[in-house]
Amino acid sequence: MTHHVVVVGAGFGGLAVTHGLAGADVKITIIDQRNHHLFQPLLYQVGTASLSTSEIAWPIRHLMRRRKEVTTLLGEVGGIDTQNRRVLLEDGGETPYDTLVLATGARHAYFGHDEWEPYAPGLKTLEDATSIRRRILLSFERAERESDAERRAALLTFVIVGGGPTGVELAGAIAELAHQNLPPEYRHIDTRRARVVLIEAGPRILPSFTEDLSAYAHASLQRLGVEIQLGQAVRECSGQGVMYGDRTLAAKVILWAAGVRASSAAAWAGLPADNAGRAKVAADLTAPGHPEIFVIGDTATVNAWQGRPVPGIAPAAKQQGMHVARTIKLRLSGQTTPRIFRYRHAGNLATIGKRAAVIDFGRIKARGRLAWWIWGLAHIYFLIGVRNRLAVALSWLWIYVSGSRSACLITQGQHRPRSS
Amino acid sequence: MTHHVVVVGAGFGGLAVTHGLAGADVKITIIDQRNHHLFQPLLYQVGTASLSTSEIAWPIRHLMRRRKEVTTLLGEVGGIDTQNRRVLLEDGGETPYDTLVLATGARHAYFGHDEWEPYAPGLKTLEDATSIRRRILLSFERAERESDAERRAALLTFVIVGGGPTGVELAGAIAELAHQNLPPEYRHIDTRRARVVLIEAGPRILPSFTEDLSAYAHASLQRLGVEIQLGQAVRECSGQGVMYGDRTLAAKVILWAAGVRASSAAAWAGLPADNAGRAKVAADLTAPGHPEIFVIGDTATVNAWQGRPVPGIAPAAKQQGMHVARTIKLRLSGQTTPRIFRYRHAGNLATIGKRAAVIDFGRIKARGRLAWWIWGLAHIYFLIGVRNRLAVALSWLWIYVSGSRSACLITQGQHRPRSS
Repeated sequence: MTHHVVVVGAGFGGLAVTHGLAGADVKITIIDQRNHHLFQPLLYQVGTASLSTSEIAWPIRHLMRRRKEVTTLLGEVGGIDTQNRRVLLEDGGETPYDTLVLATGARHAYFGHDEWEPYAPGLKTLEDATSIRRRILLSFERAERESDAERRAALLTFVIVGGGPTGVELAGAIAELAHQNLPPEYRHIDTRRARVVLIEAGPRILPSFTEDLSAYAHASLQRLGVEIQLGQAVRECSGQGVMYGDRTLAAKVILWAAGVRASSAAAWAGLPADNAGRAKVAADLTAPGHPEIFVIGDTATVNAWQGRPVPGIAPAAKQQGMHVARTIKLRLSGQTTPRIFRYRHAGNLATIGKRAAVIDFGRIKARGRLAWWIWGLAHIYFLIGVRNRLAVALSWLWIYVSGSRSACLITQGQHRPRSS
Repeated sequence: MTHHVVVVGAGFGGLAVTHGLAGADVKITIIDQRNHHLFQPLLYQVGTASLSTSEIAWPIRHLMRRRKEVTTLLGEVGGIDTQNRRVLLEDGGETPYDTLVLATGARHAYFGHDEWEPYAPGLKTLEDATSIRRRILLSFERAERESDAERRAALLTFVIVGGGPTGVELAGAIAELAHQNLPPEYRHIDTRRARVVLIEAGPRILPSFTEDLSAYAHASLQRLGVEIQLGQAVRECSGQGVMYGDRTLAAKVILWAAGVRASSAAAWAGLPADNAGRAKVAADLTAPGHPEIFVIGDTATVNAWQGRPVPGIAPAAKQQGMHVARTIKLRLSGQTTPRIFRYRHAGNLATIGKRAAVIDFGRIKARGRLAWWIWGLAHIYFLIGVRNRLAVALSWLWIYVSGSRSACLITQGQHRPRSS
C-alpha cells in the first residue's frame, strides 16, 4: 500500500507540504472546508476595495490538477481518531491516514469577548473581506443620506483595533479611500472629513519592527490622516461604537485586528495546547506521542526561532511545511531520527497606504517609496501563477495611475433582490 | 429652481438618460437599490466562473464622479406619490421630482410558481451569479465525495430551463466547464460524464433568431454535449429534480432562464400594466395621464418596433433612455409636442461556448468562429472604461489560451467560518 499523507488545510503550510512531496512515493489527500487557497497577506486589499476576490484566491483542486496522486476533498473536519488513524468529517465521512499534517490556521479572537464579533469583524477569509468592504462602503452611502450631524459623524468614523501589520494596512487603506478616492463621488458629505482611528493597547504600532521603523510608520499613517491611540485597551465594542480607556467613540464601522486564536486542530486530536489554542509540538513539529501527526503554521506553537516562538506569518508556515515534507521523504527512505525544525526569519514587511512601506530584513532596512516598491514586487512574486500576477499588477497600476479603485462593489446582505 | 430629474434604476436605460442629459440645465438624482451598474449580458460568465464580479460591474457614483449635477442615492423605492411628485423610499425618505424616469428592469418569473425559485434560481444580479456559481461548483465537489451512483448522477445533472440566449449561453458554458475545464481536477468522478440538459417549451431554441441560425445553435450545443429537450413545458421543480412532459429527471442543479417579470414600478405609480407587470406607456414613453413620468426598458411595454413590442434587451433600453433625454431637453427649450419613440433593431447575438456564436444583423448573418470573435469584440466595446475592457480581455484571453477558468471560487453559504 502506498503511504497515505492527509493534509488538513490548504493554506501556506499545507500547500508547502504538498509541493515538497512532489515526486515522492506517496498518495496525498488535501481536506479543506473551502475550495480555495487564499493569499491572506493581501486580503485587506479586498476588504478595502482595491482587489477583487479572484485575484488572491485559487481553487485548490485547480492548483493540484497535474498532481494525479493528490486528491482534494471539500469538507469540514470534526475530529481525529488518533487510535485508528482516521480523520472524521462533520458530515459523517472519514479518511484514514498514515501520516497526518494539521495546518488549519487561525481565526481572529476577542480575548474572551466573542460577543464583540458582530460589531467588530476580523479579516481572515474572503467572506470576511467582502463583508468588511460592504460595511465600509455602506457607511459612506448612509452618511450621504443622513441629515443628523451626530449620526453622520458616527457613520464617518472608522475604528481599527490593533496596531500590527493588518491594522496598519487597513487604517492606511481606509484613510486613502476616504481622503483621496471617494471625495469626487459624494455630493452631500465631504469624505475627507471621515475619521480613521487606530487603537493599539501597546506603547507603539508595529511592535515586531525596530523602534525607528515603527516611528516612521506612525508618522506616515498620521500624514494620511489616521488618528493613533496608543496604550489604550478596548473595553467594549457595540453597535454604537467603541469604549477605550475612559473614552467612548461613536463609530459605525469597527474592524478587529487585535488577536488570533488557533483553529480547533489541537482539540480534534486531543493535543496539549497553549492559551491561544495552538498545539504544543515537539522540536520536529510532531505532536507529543504521535510521530505520525505534524502540526504546523498558525495552529501550532514551537520555540524554534532561537528559543523564541515562531511568528504567525506566511513564510514561517511555508518553512514548516517544507520541513515536514522532507521529514516524510526521509522516513520513507528509512531514516527515522527526529529532525529539528529551525526557523530562519527573512524579515518583516508592512505597507502604509499606496506610497510607503517599512521593511526590516535584519541588516537591510528600508522605508518610504522604495520600500513600497519592494513590498509590491515581493507580493506579486509570491502570488501563484502568471494570470493572477498580471491581474494584480494591472489592478495596482490602475489604482496608482488613475487614483480610482476598481472593486467598490457592495454585494450581499442589506439590499436583497425583490421577487417582483 | 433648476428642473429636477429623478431616475430610478441605473441599468442601461437609466444610465442612457443620465448620459443624454449631460450639459442640460437640470439637476439629476439617480436612485438604485444597489450601488453598481451591472453589465447583464455577461452575467452568465460570472455564474459559470469565467469572469469575476468586479469585471462587469461599476459603482454608479464612480461613473458619475465628474457630473457634479448628479446625486446618487442608494435606496429602495417603495412607492410614488404622483400627486405631489415625490419618490417614496422604503426607509421613510422621499425625493421630489419635476420629471421622473422609471427604469427598474425585471426579475425572472416562474409563471405563477414562485415556490420553484429556491430550486431553480435565475440570473439577474451579481448575487444571483455568485450563488449559481456556488451551486454548480458545490455539486461537482459533492459528487466527488458521493459513493452512491444514483445520487452522484443527480449531482452531475445540470438542467437549464429556457432556450433563449441566456439559457443557451448557460448551457454552453456549463458543458464546457464540465467536459473541458474540470476533468483534470477530479479524481473519483469523470466530469465529462456530467449531463447538461436544456429544456425549452417552444419548438426551437433561440426563437428570436432565424430558423437556420437556431438550427446551427442547436447543433453546436449538441456538439458541446448538451442534451436539448424541445416542446417540453416544465411541470415542477424541486430539490429532487425537474418534471417535464411525462418525464422526471433527477438533478441537483436547476437554473431558470425561462421568463421575466417587470419590477414593481407600474404598481408604485398606479399605472396600467400587462400580464408581466410592465407599465403600458404611450408612444412617447410617458405614463398615461402623466407626461412628467417616463417608463423605459424591461419595466415598460410599448409597440414601437413596427407595431410590435420592443424586445427586452440592452440596446432597446439604451435607445429609450436617449429618447427620453432628448424629449426632456426639448421640453426645457419650450417644445412640448409629444415625440414618438421608434425602436431600431440592430440585431441579435448569442454565444455558444467559447468558439461559436450566432449573429443576426438583418442583412448580415454570421455563425461559427468569426461570429464568436465579433460577439467578443462587441461586448468588450460596450463595457465601460479602459480598465474593465483590459480585465475582461485578459480573462478571456487566458481562458482561450490556457483552457482554465480563473474564477472557480465557492464563496458564502455552506462553509461558514468557525469561531475557534
